[in-house]
Amino acid sequence: MARIQLFYLGPEGTFTHQAAMTAAEQFAPLGDFDLVPLPDVPAIMNAVQSRQGWGVIAWENNVEGYVVPNLDALIDATDVAGFARVSVDVAFNAFTVKGHAIYDCTGQPVSAHPHGLAQCTKFITEHHLRPKAASSNAAACRDLQPGQVALGPSICGKLYDLDVLGERVQDFDGARTDFLVIAPRDVVQELNARAQHGDANDFETIITFIPLATGPGVVANILDILRVAGLNMTSFMSRPIKGHDGTYSFIDTLDAAPWEPRFQKVLEILAMKGIWMKTLAVYPRRERPNPPVDAWMLPKGGIHIDTEHMSDGWQHTESVRKELLW
Amino acid sequence: MARIQLFYLGPEGTFTHQAAMTAAEQFAPLGDFDLVPLPDVPAIMNAVQSRQGWGVIAWENNVEGYVVPNLDALIDATDVAGFARVSVDVAFNAFTVKGHAIYDCTGQPVSAHPHGLAQCTKFITEHHLRPKAASSNAAACRDLQPGQVALGPSICGKLYDLDVLGERVQDFDGARTDFLVIAPRDVVQELNARAQHGDANDFETIITFIPLATGPGVVANILDILRVAGLNMTSFMSRPIKGHDGTYSFIDTLDAAPWEPRFQKVLEILAMKGIWMKTLAVYPRRERPNPPVDAWMLPKGGIHIDTEHMSDGWQHTESVRKELLW
Repeated sequence: MARIQLFYLGPEGTFTHQAAMTAAEQFAPLGDFDLVPLPDVPAIMNAVQSRQGWGVIAWENNVEGYVVPNLDALIDATDVAGFARVSVDVAFNAFTVKGHAIYDCTGQPVSAHPHGLAQCTKFITEHHLRPKAASSNAAACRDLQPGQVALGPSICGKLYDLDVLGERVQDFDGARTDFLVIAPRDVVQELNARAQHGDANDFETIITFIPLATGPGVVANILDILRVAGLNMTSFMSRPIKGHDGTYSFIDTLDAAPWEPRFQKVLEILAMKGIWMKTLAVYPRRERPNPPVDAWMLPKGGIHIDTEHMSDGWQHTESVRKELLW
Repeated sequence: MARIQLFYLGPEGTFTHQAAMTAAEQFAPLGDFDLVPLPDVPAIMNAVQSRQGWGVIAWENNVEGYVVPNLDALIDATDVAGFARVSVDVAFNAFTVKGHAIYDCTGQPVSAHPHGLAQCTKFITEHHLRPKAASSNAAACRDLQPGQVALGPSICGKLYDLDVLGERVQDFDGARTDFLVIAPRDVVQELNARAQHGDANDFETIITFIPLATGPGVVANILDILRVAGLNMTSFMSRPIKGHDGTYSFIDTLDAAPWEPRFQKVLEILAMKGIWMKTLAVYPRRERPNPPVDAWMLPKGGIHIDTEHMSDGWQHTESVRKELLW
């Protein structure tokens, strides 16, 4: 079996490491994976681009949004694309050094990345711990000293041989980060061809469009063409082209594969309009909830007109003026 | 003159503090400002909502993208909106304790937030410093010890009475963060009315739309109406409604004020379609570059069809297949 290097953001024990472990398991039929930590995402992009192996990069977090520098890096990469999307639950365990249990945490240091500390404030307060910043949660676990507490992903327990003081100590459950598994583009083409003839029936595509014109209606003109083709978008955002203020690229996630005729037709039309395009990733469709949007889900405030029971002159009420600032 | 509390993310010396100082100067004709650091953004939102004063929150960074949790917080706030947008250059100085100059940095600790450390790697390497994470850049400067170096915003020098070892030591110039100045909505209405009759001629608006239907074409249907009205968008993104996977809100920045008749008409039409809407901010239009998008600005790779010189069968070339993954 092929040996494949799978690069991730180190040190060992990061959430990206956890995503890489999940990916290695999922793709076990394709090869034996050597998981390799690298110091930053540009190093991962370079390693994949120079065909040393595949990579895992953080893509989107449901609380923080897109990991924009990684998105920009993928747009700008010459020969890298994504072929799988892996989701990791952002959950923290509290660890102590093996055999050095702490019976009274009061005043003891607790270390994690500042984001990790911010996500476990209740646990820190209840145990009267003293927050101490670390360069990463994984580094906090790796460098843990007796008498101290570290917060990190559950995999750090086994990796660094630590005792668990508390499980799932984060303030809120439900945070998660999605990662893309990336490879050179010809490998992605092969893997997609294989997936197409295998289990997967439906795919999602992340694609970037750059119109060479600006002004009112530019986006609407693109979306018109997607609408006519019946393509469903699940995410859409504008971004300046890297390093160029006042320019626009559009990153679109669609419920379709680029080799489907209706999608190909759309891309042909857009190409003929001189729009720059690059497909960033194609992966099997995720199970996603599709709840009807009910009034109870709406944020507080705002306006929402019930057209059946609306009154004349609704536009002139104080609350409408206040919510719309007109 | 009125005394107005202006809340920002502490401790003293953060980039948000710098933004708050800029805002206090800009709005000096309106009152005497007391700048008040708070521990997190929810505390700032609460202070503003309970009418204790105004606030400053980070909104968008040109490298990292939107500060999504702050965006979600503003969407969900009952009585807060933005009325000014302030931009801060993300530049770092290297500081030492006054009177404790370091002649050889080799092996000495340098402290900053992990993001700050990651943004000054060249300086750290060239001076053979040893990186040490802090909970924030401002805290690193505040807690600086003799023989150590801290990296932080330039205002930390004066605030914490430090010597400057190096100015603008960040790896790359040109990073900046935009902040919104926020207040209770009726105050924003007043301030907007004043701005309208003062210097400002043009405004920008940030608004959220939530259609209660999903499926292909939902976004295109909204953008159609904006296009017909000739409204220019400068930023557009989709976000799940906070806490509800698979639902969609759309956050749109437009080159117009909501009280302009063409914009009001658009909002009336959208309201009549049952779309939930809330204006998040209205502020005087920023000077923005508007470069023509030239081929040299395009990211590497991708496809871009020159329709004048195109060949038959361009769709079937290897490079097109590879870039579009079809």
